Amino acid sequence: MTLDKFIDQAISPWMREEGPDKDIVMSSRIRLARNFADQTYPILANEEKLVEIQEFIRDEYANKSFQTYKDLQYVPLTDLSPVEKSVLVEKHLISPHLIKHSDYAGTLISENEQVSIMVNEEDHLRIQVYYPGLQLKTALEQSFALDDWLEEKVDYAFDETKGYLTSCPTNVGTGMRASVMMHLPALVLTKQINRLIPAISQFGLVVRGIYGEGSEALGNIFQVSNQITLGKSEQDIVDDLESVVHQLIEHERMARNHILERTGKKLEDRIFRSYGTLAYSRIIDSKEASKCISDVRLGIDLGWIDNTSGNILNELMVLTQPGFLQHYANRSLRPDERDILRASVIRERLKLEE
Amino acid sequence: MTLDKFIDQAISPWMREEGPDKDIVMSSRIRLARNFADQTYPILANEEKLVEIQEFIRDEYANKSFQTYKDLQYVPLTDLSPVEKSVLVEKHLISPHLIKHSDYAGTLISENEQVSIMVNEEDHLRIQVYYPGLQLKTALEQSFALDDWLEEKVDYAFDETKGYLTSCPTNVGTGMRASVMMHLPALVLTKQINRLIPAISQFGLVVRGIYGEGSEALGNIFQVSNQITLGKSEQDIVDDLESVVHQLIEHERMARNHILERTGKKLEDRIFRSYGTLAYSRIIDSKEASKCISDVRLGIDLGWIDNTSGNILNELMVLTQPGFLQHYANRSLRPDERDILRASVIRERLKLEE
Repeated sequence: MTLDKFIDQAISPWMREEGPDKDIVMSSRIRLARNFADQTYPILANEEKLVEIQEFIRDEYANKSFQTYKDLQYVPLTDLSPVEKSVLVEKHLISPHLIKHSDYAGTLISENEQVSIMVNEEDHLRIQVYYPGLQLKTALEQSFALDDWLEEKVDYAFDETKGYLTSCPTNVGTGMRASVMMHLPALVLTKQINRLIPAISQFGLVVRGIYGEGSEALGNIFQVSNQITLGKSEQDIVDDLESVVHQLIEHERMARNHILERTGKKLEDRIFRSYGTLAYSRIIDSKEASKCISDVRLGIDLGWIDNTSGNILNELMVLTQPGFLQHYANRSLRPDERDILRASVIRERLKLEE
Repeated sequence: MTLDKFIDQAISPWMREEGPDKDIVMSSRIRLARNFADQTYPILANEEKLVEIQEFIRDEYANKSFQTYKDLQYVPLTDLSPVEKSVLVEKHLISPHLIKHSDYAGTLISENEQVSIMVNEEDHLRIQVYYPGLQLKTALEQSFALDDWLEEKVDYAFDETKGYLTSCPTNVGTGMRASVMMHLPALVLTKQINRLIPAISQFGLVVRGIYGEGSEALGNIFQVSNQITLGKSEQDIVDDLESVVHQLIEHERMARNHILERTGKKLEDRIFRSYGTLAYSRIIDSKEASKCISDVRLGIDLGWIDNTSGNILNELMVLTQPGFLQHYANRSLRPDERDILRASVIRERLKLEE
């Protein structure tokens, strides 16, 4: 595979679009959990039932179009190699859970990869809609539209009192998880993040690393999402989340100014050294790569690095993941081999900017 | 001052010529200590006597030519600013000792800076001749020729039994110090240098850092010279030194091959990261700069870095010294200001190669 094509695969087309507050908010996502009425949840269902659900979705929705999403493709996970599955997880198109139960699972994906509807995850359906920057409300509207479209043919498990019924009780009610992916390097540098994360959780929100629960905040990227799905409307949840995100954006901007004023030259040195490391190293592990990529993105935001596009953070964070590297190499790689290929891919990617 | 001109000043013209084993031996030097007969040594002489010696040399030798050395210039140290004096030390044209006693001292320099005859250092005359690469024998012949030329007008302090008489007893006899400047990064990396230095001293030789006695081996550059000046002819001393230098060259080459075979990728990573640091850092102290410059020079010798000339080690080691940086800035600089200017000068120098 050529690197250009490889990079094209790393970045979903929707990620190339501009979005509000894109210097700090990388993406907004709405995920709705839905189940078929009178059907056992996937985690307890037998093979026959799982096959039935999967075939229904494929027959009714594959190769159909909804609004701007033309020709939705259904991808059964059994069609994919282990590496291809990792790649979809690294692009956030499917969840790690879906891979673990991949015999009767799949996903319905739009061509621009903005919409991915997982089938037979924890719930029968998991509708995901992505937008660049901070666009939670638009994403919510769009996910509702998709939800209505699906509901034309699916009878959802819904209770007048509880709301949407889900496999895990933590999703009951709205079945909605709204989340934003934020790049917060200055809050990390000034250590303010350690104070902010506990404060955020008091609002019923949760802060995680880039690959969800239990994952590290590699590259200073944080996922902020709602914890509570019950007792509040989807709009209220999104409003509350958005208000906290706005405050985080403000804090991050103030922290950046503070660092600039106090230690501008030191920060510049750190950022350009990171660029040098990315541009020249021959062996780099994913932790160091993430740190350097985050630094370079901050350098772009501060106007110091002007020959490199801001999308580089999104691209390189995905490109340098183990699955993607193995996809590129077209074989499985030992960690030391990945560190060498990672360095090579990053160098080539930076050269494309010249 | 423009950077081009500044660099021109950092590198003596003779350094640009090719020399044998230039990948490891940066330069060869012969230094002869000579004194006027029946004159008190400079360290004990009164002002009147010192002025007399200085004026004699200036009157008899300034603006004269000897062989290829046209128009020798006499530079009294009183004509120089403190920064200009440091610059001459950093270029090895004068010794730190000469600066400390600079009221009646000076130096007679050839245009290509290959010859520098210090006046009123520890001895009345210190004749220095430099050659690129390993050329001790040529340097010795040339220093003898200069010595003869000076002797046409100067009556040397000489004793039939002891040989040339000098201010410090360690120089009595030949009055000669032969030395080579060697770049030994692989012997440092493999720690063999720690074993070799004591062994070398058993041959009556001494190993020092780049700026002589007590100085650190910055940039993996070592100065190897004879300790003994008495009881052996100049030719024998030079032969013995040269034989040890040949062995060091062999060891260094073997160590480079060894590292290449065992840890090639790791070495490549280290070298290119150093290049990245030099090309991008905004603050760099002289220790880190020296380490990176040494790595890059090794990368050039190994054929990995092909867009940069080998002279970069010699140039940058001088350019990044405190005196030179202040000469460039045209004012005195605090250490933190020097670290910023050093990074800037290195970046600009690397860009000139593109």
